[in-house]
Amino acid sequence: MTNKNEDCIFCKIAKGEIPSKSIYEDKNVIAFLDINPISKGHTLVIPKNHFENIFDIPESELKEIIDTSKKISILLKNKLNADGINILHASGKEAQQSVFHFHIHIVPRYKNDKLDTWPKSDYNELNFEEIIKKIKQ
Amino acid sequence: MTNKNEDCIFCKIAKGEIPSKSIYEDKNVIAFLDINPISKGHTLVIPKNHFENIFDIPESELKEIIDTSKKISILLKNKLNADGINILHASGKEAQQSVFHFHIHIVPRYKNDKLDTWPKSDYNELNFEEIIKKIKQ
Repeated sequence: MTNKNEDCIFCKIAKGEIPSKSIYEDKNVIAFLDINPISKGHTLVIPKNHFENIFDIPESELKEIIDTSKKISILLKNKLNADGINILHASGKEAQQSVFHFHIHIVPRYKNDKLDTWPKSDYNELNFEEIIKKIKQ
Repeated sequence: MTNKNEDCIFCKIAKGEIPSKSIYEDKNVIAFLDINPISKGHTLVIPKNHFENIFDIPESELKEIIDTSKKISILLKNKLNADGINILHASGKEAQQSVFHFHIHIVPRYKNDKLDTWPKSDYNELNFEEIIKKIKQ
């Protein structure tokens, strides 16, 4: 599923056409609570303009997003007494992206929250040099 | 465990004092393959200067890190034929940070890679308004 701009739920939130649990807004960026939070204060930071992923968002807007993500992280630490922060992002359906409007998850972490945000993997790299060669060619 | 600067493994990598599987380097940022990758081409992007987490890294250096993260994402997509990208970050031991030098994981994703990077949680928010009130007060 790839949303067209006019069908995009995050575009509608950015335009205020559908309500959101907004906690921060400026000219180009909005941050709101995820309605299916994985922890208390789980927040999404999105550009108001529609970009699908890390590949098409311009550098200038990406920098505003990360700037806001730092601000939100500090806010959640100070106001909700979060002990740590995870930042999670997916670009592409193969990366488990589900809404195709660029977004960053800010997940506050608390002592003994029993969350495990580190993915399990049995991947075992046998040839780092081959990868470096491919990347650099 | 909190590393002092002089004991920090990522500082040593940044200074070239211990070898790394570097794929990108500029004045302030270095990117290298994770030696315990969870997928093919799993890369770490770090500032050369020592900052511990999202809370103490300056905005200017954070912007350079996200800029490089976009470049690396494009590189992994183009050179390794990644189908998607996850960006993962932890600030604080409670968020499962294990090396206390700021870093961002770029995890290339591939069709049928059997990875699951979305954390499981049975958290259920009952009072969004209370959270918004706390954040905004």
